[in-house]
Amino acid sequence: MIPTLEWLPTGVNFLDQTKLPLEETYVLATDYKQVATVIRDMIVRGAPAIGVSAAMGMAIGIDRSTATTLPALTEEVALIAKTLAETRPTAVNLFWGIDEIRNLYFALAAKDTPISEIKSAIVAKARRMYDEDIAACKQMGAHGASLLPKEGTVLTHCNAGALATCGYGSALGVIRAAIERGHKIDVFADETRPFLQGARLTAWELMKDNIPTTVLCDNMAASLMRQGRIQAVIVGADRIAANGDVANKIGTYGVAILAKEHNIPFYVAAPWSTLDLQTATGDLIPIEQRDAREVTHSNGKQMTPHGVAIENPAFDVTPAKYVTAIITERGVLTSPYNDSIRAMSKQPEPELTAV
Amino acid sequence: MIPTLEWLPTGVNFLDQTKLPLEETYVLATDYKQVATVIRDMIVRGAPAIGVSAAMGMAIGIDRSTATTLPALTEEVALIAKTLAETRPTAVNLFWGIDEIRNLYFALAAKDTPISEIKSAIVAKARRMYDEDIAACKQMGAHGASLLPKEGTVLTHCNAGALATCGYGSALGVIRAAIERGHKIDVFADETRPFLQGARLTAWELMKDNIPTTVLCDNMAASLMRQGRIQAVIVGADRIAANGDVANKIGTYGVAILAKEHNIPFYVAAPWSTLDLQTATGDLIPIEQRDAREVTHSNGKQMTPHGVAIENPAFDVTPAKYVTAIITERGVLTSPYNDSIRAMSKQPEPELTAV
Repeated sequence: MIPTLEWLPTGVNFLDQTKLPLEETYVLATDYKQVATVIRDMIVRGAPAIGVSAAMGMAIGIDRSTATTLPALTEEVALIAKTLAETRPTAVNLFWGIDEIRNLYFALAAKDTPISEIKSAIVAKARRMYDEDIAACKQMGAHGASLLPKEGTVLTHCNAGALATCGYGSALGVIRAAIERGHKIDVFADETRPFLQGARLTAWELMKDNIPTTVLCDNMAASLMRQGRIQAVIVGADRIAANGDVANKIGTYGVAILAKEHNIPFYVAAPWSTLDLQTATGDLIPIEQRDAREVTHSNGKQMTPHGVAIENPAFDVTPAKYVTAIITERGVLTSPYNDSIRAMSKQPEPELTAV
Repeated sequence: MIPTLEWLPTGVNFLDQTKLPLEETYVLATDYKQVATVIRDMIVRGAPAIGVSAAMGMAIGIDRSTATTLPALTEEVALIAKTLAETRPTAVNLFWGIDEIRNLYFALAAKDTPISEIKSAIVAKARRMYDEDIAACKQMGAHGASLLPKEGTVLTHCNAGALATCGYGSALGVIRAAIERGHKIDVFADETRPFLQGARLTAWELMKDNIPTTVLCDNMAASLMRQGRIQAVIVGADRIAANGDVANKIGTYGVAILAKEHNIPFYVAAPWSTLDLQTATGDLIPIEQRDAREVTHSNGKQMTPHGVAIENPAFDVTPAKYVTAIITERGVLTSPYNDSIRAMSKQPEPELTAV
C-alpha cells in the first residue's frame, strides 16, 4: 500500500511527492493552512488525492477550531474553505472535497448539533471519503480492465496512480486491475515535463508493484506509436466537462491526437467526483499557469537564457471526440458523452465499501 | 555572427554547445580524433554543422599527417574517415562531409599530386565548404521566407539555427530571412528533451538577434496550436530520404501530426547535403540510440527510480505526407517528393558564394 496521505491523530500525513523517487519522506500537516501549502506546492497532487486532501484540510481546520459558538465556527469554516479553494484552480475534485465537508457542516449546524458532535462527524466523513476513493479506484479497475489489451504495452502520461489518489490509482488502477485479471501489460510512462510526474512518480509506484515500466520523454511517444509498440493509452483527469471534454496534465491533448492518428484507443479513468456537470465544455475550465521556474530550472540550475519568455500551463483540454471511453466507478462512459454522462448522473450512486 | 565552428591555424575551434546558454566556452580540436569526440559528445551538433565539422576533421587529419608517401597517407585517410564516420549514425551530412574530402583526396592522389599540394587543397576545400554552408543557409532563407506568415508565431523544434550550421541556420535561417524582409515573427521554441537544444540553444541564439522567443515544454505545443497561437512550424532535418521522409530530432514526427490536425503548415529547411537519394524511404534511416543517462539524470541528479528501463532515440522519421514543403538552397520541394527531389537533383548545382 502506497501511503499517499493518511489521517493520523497528530495531523494529516503526506508522502512528499516532490522528493520521490529517491527519497521517501513525509510532511505532517497539523492545521488547514499547512494542508493548503501541501496542495499548492504539489507535495500531494493528482485530482482525486487533492479532493480528499482538501476534505481532510477542512476536517482538520474544523476539528482544531477553538470556536465555542456555531456562528464563530461557521465564519471559520468559510475562511478554511476559501484558503483551500485558492490553492489550485483546475482540479474540480478540490472544490468537491471542500463542498462535501462544508455541506455536511451546514446540515449539522442547521440542526444546532453540538460542536463536538459536528467535529467528530466531519472527521469521520473525511476519513470515509478516503476509503471511498480507494474503493472507487478498485471499481474503475473492475470496469476498465477488459478494455486494456490481453497482452501489450499501455502508454500513460503524468501520474494517475496510487500517488494521485488515496491508493490503487485511477488510470494505473485500471492497469493494475487488468494485470490482476491475467493481462500481460508493460507500461510506457511519459516523463511528463516540467514536473516529471511520470519519470519520478509513475515509474516509482509501478516498479514497487513489479509492473514492467519504461520511461520516455514526452516527445518520443509518437515514434513508438508508429512502430506499433503502443496498444492503448490511459490517463487520468483533473476535470471532465459535461460534454466529455477532459482537462488533464499538460501534454494529454497531444497524446490523444497521436493516438487517434495511429488508431490507438485513448482512455480516461477518473472518479465521478472529477465530472463537473456545471461546466458545459472544456473551454470553460480554468487552466492553472505555474511558475516559469519549473521550466527554466532543473535541480537548481538554469537551463534557459536569462530573460527568455516561458509558457507553463499545468493542464490542457482534450476534446471529447478524441476520447474512446471514460472509465468511472459507476461504469464506462462512451460517446455521445453529453447523453451518457447525463444518464449516468441520474443513476443512484453505487455503494462503495472500503476494501 | 555566432561562432559555431571555425578553422584556425591552431586547429578547429568549436563553441561548446553543451555549456550554453550560461557559459560561452570553446573547445579547440587539434587532431581528427578530437574532432570525432567533439561530434560524438555533441559539443557541436546539427546536421549541417556536423557535415562541415567532419570535413574539417578530415582536413586536419590529412594536414597534420606525418606520412611521406601517398600509400601511407591513403591508409591514414581511411582510418580518419572511419573514425569520424563512427561518431553519429543518423545525420547523412556527416558522411557527405567525409566523402567530399575523401573524393577530392582520391582525385588528387590519382594524379600523383605532391602531398603538400594535396594538404593545402584539402584544407581549402574544407574551408570552402564552411563558406558554402553559410551561403546555402542564406539561400534557404531567400527561398523560404515568403512561406512564413507576414505576422504570426512560428514553432520550431530542437535547434536548426546558426548553432546547427556554420552560421545563419536552416530553419532559423528562414525565420531570420523572413524577419529581414519585414515579417513580424515571434518564435515558440520547444525545449526539446532530453538534450534541451530548444531551451538552451535556439532561445540563446534568437535572443542574441532580438527575435521574440518563448520556450515551452515539448508537450505544450498541441494546446497552443488549438488556441490558434501557432501559424506555422519549421524544423531542420538530419537526413531526408528520396521519397521526402524526414529524419530529424526526436519529437519532430509528433509535432508534424499536431500541425496536420490543426491545419498548420509544417516546413522542413535543410541544405541539399541532407538529402540522401540512396535511401529510398525513412524506414531505412538508422536511428541513433543515446545513453539512458540523458533521460534519467538532470544536472547530475537522478530523476527516475533505480533500474527503470529507458527509451532514448535521438531522432524520429516524419513521413513525407506530413511535410508541406522542404526548403533547400536549390529551391522549395513539394509533394510528390519522389518526383520533385529527382527533378531538382538533375538541375546543375547553384553557384553559392560566401556572404
